Amino acid sequence: MERIKVGLVGFGTVGSSFYELIEKHKDRLKEQLGVEINITKVGVNNPRKHLNSLPAGVLLEGYEDILKDEKLPIIVELVGGVEKPLDLVSRALKAGKHVITANKALLSQHGDTLFRLARENGVELKFEASVGGGIPVIKVIRESLKGNEIESIMGILNGTTNFILTRMTEEKLTFKEALTEAQKLGFAEADPILDVEGVDAAQKISLLASISFRKWVDYREILCEGIGKVTKKDIEFAEYSGFVFKLIATAKMDKGRAVVTVFPALLPKSHPLASVREEYNGVLIKSDFLGTSMYLGRGAGGSATASSVASDLGDLIERIRMKALPDPVELSPIEKLELFPQGELSYKYFLHFVTDNKPGIWATVTGLLASNNINIESVQQKWEDPTKLSDLYILVDITKESFVRKAFREIVNSPGIHTESCFFRILED
Amino acid sequence: MERIKVGLVGFGTVGSSFYELIEKHKDRLKEQLGVEINITKVGVNNPRKHLNSLPAGVLLEGYEDILKDEKLPIIVELVGGVEKPLDLVSRALKAGKHVITANKALLSQHGDTLFRLARENGVELKFEASVGGGIPVIKVIRESLKGNEIESIMGILNGTTNFILTRMTEEKLTFKEALTEAQKLGFAEADPILDVEGVDAAQKISLLASISFRKWVDYREILCEGIGKVTKKDIEFAEYSGFVFKLIATAKMDKGRAVVTVFPALLPKSHPLASVREEYNGVLIKSDFLGTSMYLGRGAGGSATASSVASDLGDLIERIRMKALPDPVELSPIEKLELFPQGELSYKYFLHFVTDNKPGIWATVTGLLASNNINIESVQQKWEDPTKLSDLYILVDITKESFVRKAFREIVNSPGIHTESCFFRILED
Repeated sequence: MERIKVGLVGFGTVGSSFYELIEKHKDRLKEQLGVEINITKVGVNNPRKHLNSLPAGVLLEGYEDILKDEKLPIIVELVGGVEKPLDLVSRALKAGKHVITANKALLSQHGDTLFRLARENGVELKFEASVGGGIPVIKVIRESLKGNEIESIMGILNGTTNFILTRMTEEKLTFKEALTEAQKLGFAEADPILDVEGVDAAQKISLLASISFRKWVDYREILCEGIGKVTKKDIEFAEYSGFVFKLIATAKMDKGRAVVTVFPALLPKSHPLASVREEYNGVLIKSDFLGTSMYLGRGAGGSATASSVASDLGDLIERIRMKALPDPVELSPIEKLELFPQGELSYKYFLHFVTDNKPGIWATVTGLLASNNINIESVQQKWEDPTKLSDLYILVDITKESFVRKAFREIVNSPGIHTESCFFRILED
Repeated sequence: MERIKVGLVGFGTVGSSFYELIEKHKDRLKEQLGVEINITKVGVNNPRKHLNSLPAGVLLEGYEDILKDEKLPIIVELVGGVEKPLDLVSRALKAGKHVITANKALLSQHGDTLFRLARENGVELKFEASVGGGIPVIKVIRESLKGNEIESIMGILNGTTNFILTRMTEEKLTFKEALTEAQKLGFAEADPILDVEGVDAAQKISLLASISFRKWVDYREILCEGIGKVTKKDIEFAEYSGFVFKLIATAKMDKGRAVVTVFPALLPKSHPLASVREEYNGVLIKSDFLGTSMYLGRGAGGSATASSVASDLGDLIERIRMKALPDPVELSPIEKLELFPQGELSYKYFLHFVTDNKPGIWATVTGLLASNNINIESVQQKWEDPTKLSDLYILVDITKESFVRKAFREIVNSPGIHTESCFFRILED
């Protein structure tokens, strides 16, 4: 029986789950792949922390020994961060090693360079775990939908924010309370800013858009808003109107330009993504032959992510055993996908103005909406105590983003309107 | 640019959609696969029917010329039925040709022989389209979940019956009215017996069980019940009690024996499969590392099925181009999976007795349930007209199948109880 040696760098939540998976399923994988997988080296920052979890000969400080080891054809990068993985992955690819990573931040910032390096060195850079945790969305797009033109992708791609919004909706928690619970349960980082501000989801949808539309999308250029401004009141009003708040990522082509977005959206309760709860992720893909298909599963957590890393490893080992050529990601490192101008996008909107409780406010708000050519669909006003501030909720018909941004700015700059005001987009299908 | 020639046999709904897909996406596939796909021969029963759809040199009667053509490395079988495809596929495999099929009936009856033939001749037999239509469930199980032990599979695998049950539930149609509509829309065959009686779903779940648990399951031996006995009244009572009727296929291992079933089940409305409507299919898989994941999409129709055939073709072409070894389905043709005895299964049940409207009926029914040690959870009685028959609805707690079958038989044999009575199983997770 042949053996294949694998080097692992990083032994946090995902790294240790991956190690556990390979140990637990050694026999099953041997039977299925025809080779025995041996994780012979595990590089970590601080080996003393892991003395009890790993055999002495396996545990190493840093990754220099792993890069130098010519008997390691495959390196699994589960480090986190960007600078260190960039050094590790680019040097590993140059050394002719296949690399598996779960690092969407790395790929979305340096994917063009890294995929080019992989191609130049005749090796593969696999990344199933970088989007959707355990959901095999990369494989579905690259392999199962090969005979389809992908029309649109819509997804809940961040487990942390989905957990927070679920708790805010179902348990009536505030954002802070829900975040604290997510952190306790290990679904949110100590510093959750990348999740909460939508950056993690933006990196993921940009990767999905890049492999679907086969040109590079820079996540820093897309429309990206986080969930920080969603309040309990917004969620209550949405619910009352038949909607659920979700942090939704979208990607589609519109006359040769890409619409790629991340924002907290109001979905009708009957929408297939509306029932994706807790830390789960869901991806809905429309394509010309298959039609609508959807993929759901755990978007975060060590074991779900480890499952995707193992899937990449299985694919790699089969190729190595068959002495097949690598399967490069066909992304042009130069060609960037042109993005649809943000101001030209159009949606239905939900506006929430926090205002003084005095005459003339409605006249100001509706006057400024009218002067920006924005059509009101329905309104509601609520205040518990007439001496306090008032909440104006307004649903508006399909309008250009630039009109809404301008009207909103003008309204919030008017006397008696407070800056806690906000607006959200409605996604109906 | 290299060309690869493909022979297609069958030009019905799926065959013509597949041909259309290859024509429409010729350039896209060329760019992605690095070869041009040419469907050079299409074998049909009656060429005159297709004179306007296919070029003259391509259209052929029967498949003898296709089998003999040494320049065709790949044959796509989209014929339907079993005897003819068996002849075609086994001869093609023996001739060293790779075969793609969407034919679950063929595979579930002769898969052991055919997969052995493929292995012996160093070729592949691909079958993504045979289960779940366009949903890539075979690839997910065989590739994405390679690092997982599959704990259970639960699915809506038949589009026809799901369409019928959806219309019966949502539009209050009778079974016959819904079936007629399904036939009009092309979701049901002229002879729908294989769908309605659950045989199609049984073949599909047996295939999924076989590839998941890696031993052969004979669909003829599993617990299989169709939707023919589900009435509007049953659906109404289920809805009133918070349940939805779905034809559910399940597969799991229980202490080394397989539980593989197909029956119309009551699902709680909040169950993830409860919202799979119309002709859509859904597959929910529980596995040890990924946890719960779900895959949804069109389970029937030409274009969705063609999408899966194209996915298989893409995979095959990549292997051929890389001169890689075939990837055999690792199913032992001899080893059969031992099935859990049907009588030993246990469920919660929903019993529906149609009875005369006279004293003593309740005493008979509840007495016979008690003597069979069956615990009643709730009851309801309904009749619109006291001179007519009465409907007794009973929900019972978890009980062994053999006890329920025996009690049911005894009750239906009692005076005043009619043979239209029936029982169904409740699946809560």
